[in-house]
Amino acid sequence: MTSPRLEQQLRFILEADKLKEIFRQTLCTQSRRPENDAEHSWHLCLLVIVLAEHANFRPLNLGRVLRMLIIHDLVEIDAGDTYAYDEARMADQHARECVAADRIFGLLPADQAAEFRAAWDEFEARQTPEAKFAAAVDRFQPMLLNCVSEGVSWREHAVTQDRVLKRNAHIAEGSAALWDYAVQMVQQAVDAGHLAPPPEST
Amino acid sequence: MTSPRLEQQLRFILEADKLKEIFRQTLCTQSRRPENDAEHSWHLCLLVIVLAEHANFRPLNLGRVLRMLIIHDLVEIDAGDTYAYDEARMADQHARECVAADRIFGLLPADQAAEFRAAWDEFEARQTPEAKFAAAVDRFQPMLLNCVSEGVSWREHAVTQDRVLKRNAHIAEGSAALWDYAVQMVQQAVDAGHLAPPPEST
Repeated sequence: MTSPRLEQQLRFILEADKLKEIFRQTLCTQSRRPENDAEHSWHLCLLVIVLAEHANFRPLNLGRVLRMLIIHDLVEIDAGDTYAYDEARMADQHARECVAADRIFGLLPADQAAEFRAAWDEFEARQTPEAKFAAAVDRFQPMLLNCVSEGVSWREHAVTQDRVLKRNAHIAEGSAALWDYAVQMVQQAVDAGHLAPPPEST
Repeated sequence: MTSPRLEQQLRFILEADKLKEIFRQTLCTQSRRPENDAEHSWHLCLLVIVLAEHANFRPLNLGRVLRMLIIHDLVEIDAGDTYAYDEARMADQHARECVAADRIFGLLPADQAAEFRAAWDEFEARQTPEAKFAAAVDRFQPMLLNCVSEGVSWREHAVTQDRVLKRNAHIAEGSAALWDYAVQMVQQAVDAGHLAPPPEST
């Protein structure tokens, strides 16, 4: 009665349920517990539909932006979350995530595996307007949550303002307006003592 | 420097962060902790992009389906999660959620508040092909997770097979294929002792 194709798709959907157990360094604003990748991915989708007017390139294909963001972190089921300021682990992040992408998207029927992998590759390459905006919200959202939660995650890892700005500068490629806002927000975090200034300035 | 419009949009996005603290009766398959509304909403988006070919009406405007699902549970920030088999609370659910929709979507700039409210109304009314499919995955996903987690949530609330089938029958309006699968899945749950059969059959 049931189609092997549907069964295969549902196995992928159940495997993806593991994303709810991959925790990030960012804290949720209410409970201050670490955010997981699944709720992070949802929050990014919400940012996209609310903030699309601030993208550098318009009109964007928002369906394509959403599709990238829905799947962008699935590789972390195998590769784990790599903290943006952990330079040692960042070095081989893409290689580890490619192996994960092969296995996880490979659970889908071949045509969908190729489609999803292409969307993930597009996101990672950050060349298309859609990928640039997707990457911008993926970087903006943790900065926003970090600022609201008094920079706990930055201070725990002794991250400084210059590193935050350098690491997130490509927000500007997707949205100049969000980058302007982010730069001000980070300065306010420094002024409030929630983020350390650059080492040379202390 | 910053635009009042962007500030207003970000206040809405931060208010929405509370969705990560609204817990459902459904369990995550790995840790068996209750799923929250934010990760549930992400999971539904994933179901949409994987299972769209099983919708009764094709092609669907998937961007519109995703938009509805991204925001469909935001009202629960004020109204709370209403368990699908809690008939007393189900009675005034829509009225409670309308009040919540007024407040929460009302945080957005007026043009977006109207747009988001219209999308939520479309989802609730289940009349368009997009809303029917969105509602179908919103009902199918908890059934799938309940079956995989041995029906713990159904048994805790003494829910029986007939009530599960009656409550979720409108899955068929969005996807006959998913409804066929759901009916078989529920029968397997009964056969395995994870869901009680209808009272008259015991």
